Amino acid sequence: MAIKVAVAGASGYAGGEFLRLLLGHPALESGEMEIGTLAAGSNAGQPLVEHHPHLLPLAERVLVETSADTLAGHDVVVLGLPHGHSSEIAEQLGPDVLVVDLGADFRLSDASDWEAYYGSAHAGTWPYGLPELPGAREALRSTRRIAVPGCFPTGASIALFPAVAAGLVDASGVTIVSVTGASGAGKSAKVPMLASEVMGSAKAYGVTTHRHAPEITQNLRAVTAAPVSVSFTPVLAPMARGILTTAVAPTTATAGELRRVYAEAFDHEPFVHVLPEGVQPMTASVLGSNAVQLGIEVDERAGRAVFTAAIDNLAKGTAGGAIQSMNLALGLPETAGLSTVGLAP
Amino acid sequence: MAIKVAVAGASGYAGGEFLRLLLGHPALESGEMEIGTLAAGSNAGQPLVEHHPHLLPLAERVLVETSADTLAGHDVVVLGLPHGHSSEIAEQLGPDVLVVDLGADFRLSDASDWEAYYGSAHAGTWPYGLPELPGAREALRSTRRIAVPGCFPTGASIALFPAVAAGLVDASGVTIVSVTGASGAGKSAKVPMLASEVMGSAKAYGVTTHRHAPEITQNLRAVTAAPVSVSFTPVLAPMARGILTTAVAPTTATAGELRRVYAEAFDHEPFVHVLPEGVQPMTASVLGSNAVQLGIEVDERAGRAVFTAAIDNLAKGTAGGAIQSMNLALGLPETAGLSTVGLAP
Amino acid sequence: MAIKVAVAGASGYAGGEFLRLLLGHPALESGEMEIGTLAAGSNAGQPLVEHHPHLLPLAERVLVETSADTLAGHDVVVLGLPHGHSSEIAEQLGPDVLVVDLGADFRLSDASDWEAYYGSAHAGTWPYGLPELPGAREALRSTRRIAVPGCFPTGASIALFPAVAAGLVDASGVTIVSVTGASGAGKSAKVPMLASEVMGSAKAYGVTTHRHAPEITQNLRAVTAAPVSVSFTPVLAPMARGILTTAVAPTTATAGELRRVYAEAFDHEPFVHVLPEGVQPMTASVLGSNAVQLGIEVDERAGRAVFTAAIDNLAKGTAGGAIQSMNLALGLPETAGLSTVGLAP
Amino acid sequence: MAIKVAVAGASGYAGGEFLRLLLGHPALESGEMEIGTLAAGSNAGQPLVEHHPHLLPLAERVLVETSADTLAGHDVVVLGLPHGHSSEIAEQLGPDVLVVDLGADFRLSDASDWEAYYGSAHAGTWPYGLPELPGAREALRSTRRIAVPGCFPTGASIALFPAVAAGLVDASGVTIVSVTGASGAGKSAKVPMLASEVMGSAKAYGVTTHRHAPEITQNLRAVTAAPVSVSFTPVLAPMARGILTTAVAPTTATAGELRRVYAEAFDHEPFVHVLPEGVQPMTASVLGSNAVQLGIEVDERAGRAVFTAAIDNLAKGTAGGAIQSMNLALGLPETAGLSTVGLAP
Repeated sequence: MAIKVAVAGASGYAGGEFLRLLLGHPALESGEMEIGTLAAGSNAGQPLVEHHPHLLPLAERVLVETSADTLAGHDVVVLGLPHGHSSEIAEQLGPDVLVVDLGADFRLSDASDWEAYYGSAHAGTWPYGLPELPGAREALRSTRRIAVPGCFPTGASIALFPAVAAGLVDASGVTIVSVTGASGAGKSAKVPMLASEVMGSAKAYGVTTHRHAPEITQNLRAVTAAPVSVSFTPVLAPMARGILTTAVAPTTATAGELRRVYAEAFDHEPFVHVLPEGVQPMTASVLGSNAVQLGIEVDERAGRAVFTAAIDNLAKGTAGGAIQSMNLALGLPETAGLSTVGLAP
Repeated sequence: MAIKVAVAGASGYAGGEFLRLLLGHPALESGEMEIGTLAAGSNAGQPLVEHHPHLLPLAERVLVETSADTLAGHDVVVLGLPHGHSSEIAEQLGPDVLVVDLGADFRLSDASDWEAYYGSAHAGTWPYGLPELPGAREALRSTRRIAVPGCFPTGASIALFPAVAAGLVDASGVTIVSVTGASGAGKSAKVPMLASEVMGSAKAYGVTTHRHAPEITQNLRAVTAAPVSVSFTPVLAPMARGILTTAVAPTTATAGELRRVYAEAFDHEPFVHVLPEGVQPMTASVLGSNAVQLGIEVDERAGRAVFTAAIDNLAKGTAGGAIQSMNLALGLPETAGLSTVGLAP
Repeated sequence: MAIKVAVAGASGYAGGEFLRLLLGHPALESGEMEIGTLAAGSNAGQPLVEHHPHLLPLAERVLVETSADTLAGHDVVVLGLPHGHSSEIAEQLGPDVLVVDLGADFRLSDASDWEAYYGSAHAGTWPYGLPELPGAREALRSTRRIAVPGCFPTGASIALFPAVAAGLVDASGVTIVSVTGASGAGKSAKVPMLASEVMGSAKAYGVTTHRHAPEITQNLRAVTAAPVSVSFTPVLAPMARGILTTAVAPTTATAGELRRVYAEAFDHEPFVHVLPEGVQPMTASVLGSNAVQLGIEVDERAGRAVFTAAIDNLAKGTAGGAIQSMNLALGLPETAGLSTVGLAP
Repeated sequence: MAIKVAVAGASGYAGGEFLRLLLGHPALESGEMEIGTLAAGSNAGQPLVEHHPHLLPLAERVLVETSADTLAGHDVVVLGLPHGHSSEIAEQLGPDVLVVDLGADFRLSDASDWEAYYGSAHAGTWPYGLPELPGAREALRSTRRIAVPGCFPTGASIALFPAVAAGLVDASGVTIVSVTGASGAGKSAKVPMLASEVMGSAKAYGVTTHRHAPEITQNLRAVTAAPVSVSFTPVLAPMARGILTTAVAPTTATAGELRRVYAEAFDHEPFVHVLPEGVQPMTASVLGSNAVQLGIEVDERAGRAVFTAAIDNLAKGTAGGAIQSMNLALGLPETAGLSTVGLAP
């Protein structure tokens, strides 16, 4: 019997990207997997294609309401819901259903962090869907619950954890600035996200308060006993997709020393590619793909290591990471349906 | 007799922007000033309007060769030349001519910095065209030579110097990431600057090696005896103009303490506007203008101050700053021909 | 006593652009004019600068409610209201007040056209604020009521009327496709106008039903007794401002013949610039300005004349055209506060 | 033995896109097909990944010179060469090699058209790689030579031919305006294609002289005996990929009549999707895919049919169309390696 996958929040960007990738998944083509319920909130009752005219093979599908009923009878349920809504639904889905939460509800392990940044009660912690982190892949293989990482933590954590784990940078002085496309803000209509506001302009936002800061910190603390302190600033740039993260930390290591620990960490990773010295990643190279392209440089004058990471926020940063983790949990090849080839130019 | 202004490098972006602003200068409208020679390199002999179809009032002008001859007989000569070419021309222009160098040749005071970053012999140091820096305005009033600052140092220096001067941040741990539009790369044809390469993508460049790093460091060292160490990374984003600088430094100060020193530094500055707490600048707000919009926040968890600055790289960051400094040197009102009103959306 | 100007709809794009241009108007600088009430709809009570952070000189202003009371006591009232709301307000303003309507209410002279395209009762017809049209300038000099043209009709009418008036094209076979920036859709939050939807994409809209079609037709019918039939299609492109209109019509005339009638029509117009043969206008050249740049070519194989026009939809296409007409009605120099210099690149 | 595919012009946009699609082709994954020589012009000797950092699976490949020698021994040779260079290479490749020309050399059947628009001797005519045209699919099944259509003719021909073939529009009065992304101009460094020139601007080019005009005309003439006359204007918009074609022609037919002939023409086509009445295609929906999305409307007032078509110029408009045709010629499933799912947002 085919693995049946439901998507809640199917009319949003994250849900749409999950479906886009799923349509190219070999298990779908072979009939091992099938797309079941596509649910939405206020868009329920409308054809999916009105919201995602790029998903022609699903042109006949209609969005239904999001409820335990409409999501029942599936092997995999993907939740692309506003923060705070996944817990209630997940509880009703039964322990054998693989629940993949694209939202933040189960990412943070520290309840006080959750409360400080999200202002509600902490729902719990699920295995974290970033297989590249030490220990994460194993935890994902046997889970029925996956907390997909935030888009910024995906790039920033991969860019930094090998150096932090090896003690080659001072983790108490990490500064991260991430340039992001507009799709990270989701598909809800807001004046500051109008095309005329975003095009031709750059703007920092969530300065000192962004909810992804504690998530990055948590990921780095997991690999070191040393103190970790992260300053994180996202900057909105005029592009639909992509995150270019620049992560800077004090170091006395050489570029060669850093490159050795990154090679060890990523040489066998299918999706992480460390670029040669002097070569910088660009987000266009990873658009639509699950690839992470990394640059590593050392500024000897300033005593700082500068790591740069390019990802597609919707793909590796959300729906691609979700599929990678889902594959692991389902016992499918980890790379199935995912690519390292970006859409450029 | 009218003040006669020549522009060398008139077919480039910096030269074009200088002309755009000059066309709105009240001294030009009143006849006190006039536009003389417009010179270029390989574009000499061509109509200016082929290169700047937005400059309709100069549609009849033809570009001439750049030489001491064509630039002779002017009261002001603006040089928008490739680095390393200003010195020879300037020497031939006579001490009474006001020479405004849009290039880097005379910005750095440390010859070894110059040689390390530019790889040629140091030409010297001229008064620095950033009137907002302590002491700079006075030096500009009596000079016949102006070194216009680099675009990144303009925003970064204004964002940081009050805190550094007041000792409210640890200047030995400054990290700067500046998101810039494509016009900063100039108007020469290069594949990486093609529209198809830049649109939809973000990319860091000049990582650990950018020539504006020593200039920023020099500006901060001028206001403090404490150690200064700056990590600077520019990121190219898909927009034509604008720089959004994020500058982060360790601090134990409160936002209120920082805001007080910034108010003192800038309350009487015509072009620098400190935004209220929680409000972030966007580059669209300053396009075409000479305004600097600043955000100031303190991340208490991380012990870091986060300064953000929006400027137009071609205006305040190059040609606008040049006009502001030229006004001072000519005894004209400092704000003549300049605006704090940006072109948005 | 200064001329007092009120703006209703001041938080929108059209209102903001009117204020941006007004801030550079010499009558404001000289004290002959002053900015009075700034009114809004649901944004009343908020600081203007929250909506227009680029208008720093108005940073202290607060938006008030839109009513006959708040707009009373002004010499000029500019209405940037949703269609259908200008009539009621205008009636209460008294015949001596100069009312400049940025909306559509008084543009169409044919009531059945109005009803067919706008679906409400026809409010009437006011002098049309496109001084370049035959007879329009004279009518504007003595009016207290101005209907500012739609953005598309501004470019399309200027591109076509001289050829139509001279009988050099077959006006019964006109096809117009206009590529427009996103600001034409206004500042209301709608999913299809989100940055992620617009960037990287082009889309036609209002195909066969756009409300500017009858307005273009009306303008052409005013200059010819021959039959006029216009097909008009707007295409949304990923840019904030600008309209590039391509207007095609059957012709047996030569390019030379066409150029002669365009020279006659526009040689003395301060804002219309006909480009030389083989040169095409680009919208960047006119951004922020009141300029219209025109291209004229004849396709002899196809027997078609191809006219192209670049304007800034918010400037010459709305607020710039409004100021030009206001200047005429107030007896000020027609070009005061307006420029032919665009912001490029 | 595997089918061996060589690509000449591999460092350009068309060559890169062909490789991007080939990397997802099932015959490559199954081992039935392999990628052989990757050749370039002045970039020979350089790693492919320097030019296409998005093609990570080919990161080890080095570009070789383009010659009959380096291209020998392949079953398929794809030519992405400047116009006029394919003929000489093709002659040396032997009649059993499948030669797929992405260039224009063999598209036009009329030698005088070729000479008028390309200014050189006509090389000949090959089967035309647009399987959706009447008769084209059959011709492609048995050929060893394929002339891949131009990007504009792909969208325009599909948008128009059913109506022209059915006599439902007046083909002597066709007007086409196509809004295109910048990648259509190729990857050579030219000032007008710099990011700063293209972003924030729209501009028509090749007005009345574009080389794709006779190709569109030829395609329409092939389906009707009635006179055909086409006016074609391309407009460059600030996006990397995508063409939105608006094609307008006089009609007395109803929308229903037109929709019937389009349904007949395309209901069984895997890549052409006619949208419901009132729905317009957007280029984002087809990015990276081989899909053509079509809108059909009738403007009864103007007596005109308005057809709109969205394609990806590099995919269906070049490399995707090439793979579709290659599949036919090789006896593979026509849709292998191609998708109707676009990358949006």
